[in-house]
Amino acid sequence: MNTIGQLFSVTSFGESHGSHVGCVIDGCPAGLLLDQDQIQKQVNRRKANQSVFATARKEEDIIDIISGVFENKTTGTPICILIKNKDLKSEDYDQLKDIYRPNHADYTYAAKYGTRDHRGGGRSSVRITAPLVAAGDIAYQLLQQKTAIQTTAFVSQIGSVALMNRNEYQHLDLLHIDGNELRCPDENTARRMKILIDEVQTEGDTLGGVITCVVKNVPVGLGEPIFSKLHAQLGHAMLSINSVKGFEYGYGFDASAMKGSEYNDIFEMTDGNISTQTNFSGGIQGGISNGMDIFFHVAFKPISSIRKTQQTIDTKGQSVSLNIGGRHDVCAVPRAVPIVEAYANIIVADAILQAKLSTI
Amino acid sequence: MNTIGQLFSVTSFGESHGSHVGCVIDGCPAGLLLDQDQIQKQVNRRKANQSVFATARKEEDIIDIISGVFENKTTGTPICILIKNKDLKSEDYDQLKDIYRPNHADYTYAAKYGTRDHRGGGRSSVRITAPLVAAGDIAYQLLQQKTAIQTTAFVSQIGSVALMNRNEYQHLDLLHIDGNELRCPDENTARRMKILIDEVQTEGDTLGGVITCVVKNVPVGLGEPIFSKLHAQLGHAMLSINSVKGFEYGYGFDASAMKGSEYNDIFEMTDGNISTQTNFSGGIQGGISNGMDIFFHVAFKPISSIRKTQQTIDTKGQSVSLNIGGRHDVCAVPRAVPIVEAYANIIVADAILQAKLSTI
Amino acid sequence: MNTIGQLFSVTSFGESHGSHVGCVIDGCPAGLLLDQDQIQKQVNRRKANQSVFATARKEEDIIDIISGVFENKTTGTPICILIKNKDLKSEDYDQLKDIYRPNHADYTYAAKYGTRDHRGGGRSSVRITAPLVAAGDIAYQLLQQKTAIQTTAFVSQIGSVALMNRNEYQHLDLLHIDGNELRCPDENTARRMKILIDEVQTEGDTLGGVITCVVKNVPVGLGEPIFSKLHAQLGHAMLSINSVKGFEYGYGFDASAMKGSEYNDIFEMTDGNISTQTNFSGGIQGGISNGMDIFFHVAFKPISSIRKTQQTIDTKGQSVSLNIGGRHDVCAVPRAVPIVEAYANIIVADAILQAKLSTI
Amino acid sequence: MNTIGQLFSVTSFGESHGSHVGCVIDGCPAGLLLDQDQIQKQVNRRKANQSVFATARKEEDIIDIISGVFENKTTGTPICILIKNKDLKSEDYDQLKDIYRPNHADYTYAAKYGTRDHRGGGRSSVRITAPLVAAGDIAYQLLQQKTAIQTTAFVSQIGSVALMNRNEYQHLDLLHIDGNELRCPDENTARRMKILIDEVQTEGDTLGGVITCVVKNVPVGLGEPIFSKLHAQLGHAMLSINSVKGFEYGYGFDASAMKGSEYNDIFEMTDGNISTQTNFSGGIQGGISNGMDIFFHVAFKPISSIRKTQQTIDTKGQSVSLNIGGRHDVCAVPRAVPIVEAYANIIVADAILQAKLSTI
Repeated sequence: MNTIGQLFSVTSFGESHGSHVGCVIDGCPAGLLLDQDQIQKQVNRRKANQSVFATARKEEDIIDIISGVFENKTTGTPICILIKNKDLKSEDYDQLKDIYRPNHADYTYAAKYGTRDHRGGGRSSVRITAPLVAAGDIAYQLLQQKTAIQTTAFVSQIGSVALMNRNEYQHLDLLHIDGNELRCPDENTARRMKILIDEVQTEGDTLGGVITCVVKNVPVGLGEPIFSKLHAQLGHAMLSINSVKGFEYGYGFDASAMKGSEYNDIFEMTDGNISTQTNFSGGIQGGISNGMDIFFHVAFKPISSIRKTQQTIDTKGQSVSLNIGGRHDVCAVPRAVPIVEAYANIIVADAILQAKLSTI
Repeated sequence: MNTIGQLFSVTSFGESHGSHVGCVIDGCPAGLLLDQDQIQKQVNRRKANQSVFATARKEEDIIDIISGVFENKTTGTPICILIKNKDLKSEDYDQLKDIYRPNHADYTYAAKYGTRDHRGGGRSSVRITAPLVAAGDIAYQLLQQKTAIQTTAFVSQIGSVALMNRNEYQHLDLLHIDGNELRCPDENTARRMKILIDEVQTEGDTLGGVITCVVKNVPVGLGEPIFSKLHAQLGHAMLSINSVKGFEYGYGFDASAMKGSEYNDIFEMTDGNISTQTNFSGGIQGGISNGMDIFFHVAFKPISSIRKTQQTIDTKGQSVSLNIGGRHDVCAVPRAVPIVEAYANIIVADAILQAKLSTI
Repeated sequence: MNTIGQLFSVTSFGESHGSHVGCVIDGCPAGLLLDQDQIQKQVNRRKANQSVFATARKEEDIIDIISGVFENKTTGTPICILIKNKDLKSEDYDQLKDIYRPNHADYTYAAKYGTRDHRGGGRSSVRITAPLVAAGDIAYQLLQQKTAIQTTAFVSQIGSVALMNRNEYQHLDLLHIDGNELRCPDENTARRMKILIDEVQTEGDTLGGVITCVVKNVPVGLGEPIFSKLHAQLGHAMLSINSVKGFEYGYGFDASAMKGSEYNDIFEMTDGNISTQTNFSGGIQGGISNGMDIFFHVAFKPISSIRKTQQTIDTKGQSVSLNIGGRHDVCAVPRAVPIVEAYANIIVADAILQAKLSTI
Repeated sequence: MNTIGQLFSVTSFGESHGSHVGCVIDGCPAGLLLDQDQIQKQVNRRKANQSVFATARKEEDIIDIISGVFENKTTGTPICILIKNKDLKSEDYDQLKDIYRPNHADYTYAAKYGTRDHRGGGRSSVRITAPLVAAGDIAYQLLQQKTAIQTTAFVSQIGSVALMNRNEYQHLDLLHIDGNELRCPDENTARRMKILIDEVQTEGDTLGGVITCVVKNVPVGLGEPIFSKLHAQLGHAMLSINSVKGFEYGYGFDASAMKGSEYNDIFEMTDGNISTQTNFSGGIQGGISNGMDIFFHVAFKPISSIRKTQQTIDTKGQSVSLNIGGRHDVCAVPRAVPIVEAYANIIVADAILQAKLSTI
């Protein structure tokens, strides 16, 4: 239930305000030389990094790999990654102990488990993804040493401001996603996003958005039909990220309005390799990668905690007014970029291992 | 890899033109009284049932439950369901033996496995869903005997013709989805869909579409964070269906453009029960059902086999012209309605079993 | 619950007197050329083959591979194997419907599931191993094409008659285990076993015994600590066979009485390879194969159905006298030899696949 | 691979001389009130506690539960348990870096993974069981709050000194196993064991032994045929413990020499409950508990590290003489008693959860 990946298998644990968040990777092959600085760097990308959409909470997410690595090399045994929770002012959350905040998981956790850790969202906090970003980077380093696969996620929509056509990413500079704080590779769109965020910040409101992810140089043959199709695994992973409401790959929902003759990707030979003239399929056919770019889109709802006063109920069912104090993110989508990349890398690394077993 | 569901676990096997397609359910509790006629009826719904989008292939999908049921009651042991493949003219497919059809899984299977059963798509054929529809109906009967859960799928879009707003399904009559051949509960839209299909049929082209699914009367507490969230399990299942390109639940991609103050579902008490005034969340918060309707949308690409001539390559990489003979479906989406329902019921039944274990 | 093997994964289904018994193999690599005659031959070895310990029931266990194999080659998709149950005289078992036979699973199944298929033991019948023997032979053919591994099981004890020292199998001719009906490679011991069986047959009583299994030419490195150690997987598999009460590998329980200096296998180089001078360890150290022979012993209890009158209770708790009519096996151990081999081959094939993933 | 239990699922991580050893429990129901002192007490039982068989290494195994528990109650989220490794003198092990110690896992780990953490056995050290003993105690507390199940393990053999008949444990006082340092409930046998240990200590040699475990008050119906039979799960768990070479339940290997008429446990009614007159079966029939005591035996080989000089080879294949310095255990079996109990409790707790799903 708290594990993703079948062979490169990552088990998550921890709560927002427990002592640590962490994860265990079981199935990482031995002999992988790890660059721990790069892992830390990727984890840092998840942190809020500037004024507009920063949380007040200052996180220093120092990763601590406590097993499975010896002299910087993986040993084939489980890799446990810990990140200490620094900012333990549980009493800040006492006022929320008896309230079900709108659109948070407060009510569903309480109803399901009969009890809950109310501090900062507990287990439902996005904070638990921090060590998973580290795990994703280990997956990425595995991919780097075995393949030329390159995974890049970026923001293609914030609120009502979107890239012209998120399926046409070919002209974008995917090498410098972090060039602006929005992580949108089109500067003009990024500027408009920033203006929107500033407005909404003033209103005390919040925004959602869309992240697009492109995986290049994928070998043919990844994905295990019929219930571990590559896109189903990717979709499962993305839908596991906090606030995600939708997933589509290739032309996705737009494909529903196309005719077969428009949509079909025609095979051809280029430089002795099989490719397709177009890539409406998004690099996956029959659940298996076909060597073209894999691309997909992930929809995020707006952040639930708004500064405006909201009506809600308390745990006794009484109507109450809720004012969530402190500063809060306007939009979490840019911060989710490394999470999307991490989860994608975990799934692709898992598929690489699976594919080793396809033929005798 | 060919198994879905963790506790109500369904393993699929079979190819389009092998002797049988089938599945094994492991984990169905003992003591469930099965109505086999109802299962057969649901399987029949998957078959093409009328002129416009029918395949020439006449399937008589008689289910044969060969284990796990004794005197019409489940025994707690694995339930194997077989459906015989009747129409074994493999030679019909000989012309396709050496060709990679556009947008089929021919190429990816061949590349992955080094070999493939080319007859009628082999393992990648939608035919393998027939016994899974039966499994889904067993899941449904389990739900019926334990809960008031009601799962209904319907066609909300065919090609460019769509319901006005698929998120506003409340006024639709979900009890009579099969009232028209399009399985669209709005007669006017259904008529327009039919006109479009007739046109596209004449052109020799094909269409995709969207299926919407609504699950009513769901108890609070289904779903297992953080990697078996209810919507992630549903998404995984839906993305496993042939031709599916996208999944969204609640307001999905539309939620990305909303503000928090617009999107947040406000809790209230109605008749002593906690509910929300709106249901943008689609009945799932933090990965756990909150008691409101669960609804989601599934995007299908157009059918790959078109009657128009297409360029493609053969297995040697030579360019060839492809004319796929015979009659073919224009649109598979109405036939996929019982598949969506079946997979949803499997996931929900699984979640019901999981939820038994949430508390001590 | 009904699946064994993590990568070469076999799911069993079926009951003694349902229409079929069968299994599904998920994870067999594509491209394996299958000799179906050899599979059938191995399944035939499981059948009673001569007068003394034969059952009256005449089984013709014709295997039917209904998926996953195309033109005699595995396709990488799930392989379903069916065996029809021929001898469906359920009424023969009506007298047993309301009785809990001593040492059978009648009572525990009824108590657990609230219902049971009482015909011939239902799911708890050893008959369900027939298709698993076929699955084991597919595993064996996989091993043959990839390795020099050779798995041989034989009877080392029947009742009180045993080989002198079952750990010293080196002088035995393991190539002709089926040379006598007892499947004991020592002719003298086999004769004594036969005499014992004849005596016990006359008494209307039954016998158990021990099967020893030797796996030769195992590559170093099979087994996945710490919960998929090779011997733990083998033990799990063997303990899953009907009537098995114990498992030991290497010197097993005898090792408990040895001192470290006696037991330690000393490493040495022979012909440039690392080996050990002795093999008390039974070819596995730290859960991982070390290249020496793997050998283990499996203890079977006597057959539960005896011809003598026994006291027992019926389903209402009333005391009853039980006379089980018909002819019954005196000893099932020789018939279990191919089952032990099959399960061992499944586990070793699974470990071979796992080992592909050990290093980057 | 490093996970045991399907529903009460425990994933182990850590090495002997890394910073921590630990585990994650996924699937522990919410609402379990935990007595952390009792957990610590059980972990302490695993430590060497007196002169004769103590290691020089002084371990202070303080458990740290870093997630899944809030205000002493389980929350239904994963429980991570850490134990810090205190005694990090890695250089003590430098002499062993290039040597394959006889009967250790040095060679097999190196061969499998191409690399290894040589410090103190790394992952193959018994130290990694410390947090698993904690996990086992959480399982035990779950059992205590839901059932009357009582699990007791004790030493029934050390080297050549054994209890008269380990299957006849009924007269032993199982409530005071820790009454002597051998954890053998028969004082006379314990004394003889102590004499043997003293002798062998002088010789610089080591001993193995047998642990017997009795599980009382087990409800009928635990165990999931056919591949999660209760005894197969128990056997798998026990065979996962370091140094274990054999497992038998009920009369085990002795049953192989019995006749059916001697072995069959006759059903009878006592006080309105079904029981058996004898319990040769060891409380499990057809893989499912029948309500009688479950008992089983676990064989341990002698400790591999002896004080005597041994021949072995180094990693280059050169012959070397090995003198392992420092003080070492003569016999680890008494220390393994809480490990056996812990693993048994994990399996039984898992089976209790599974059994919740048996019937509709």
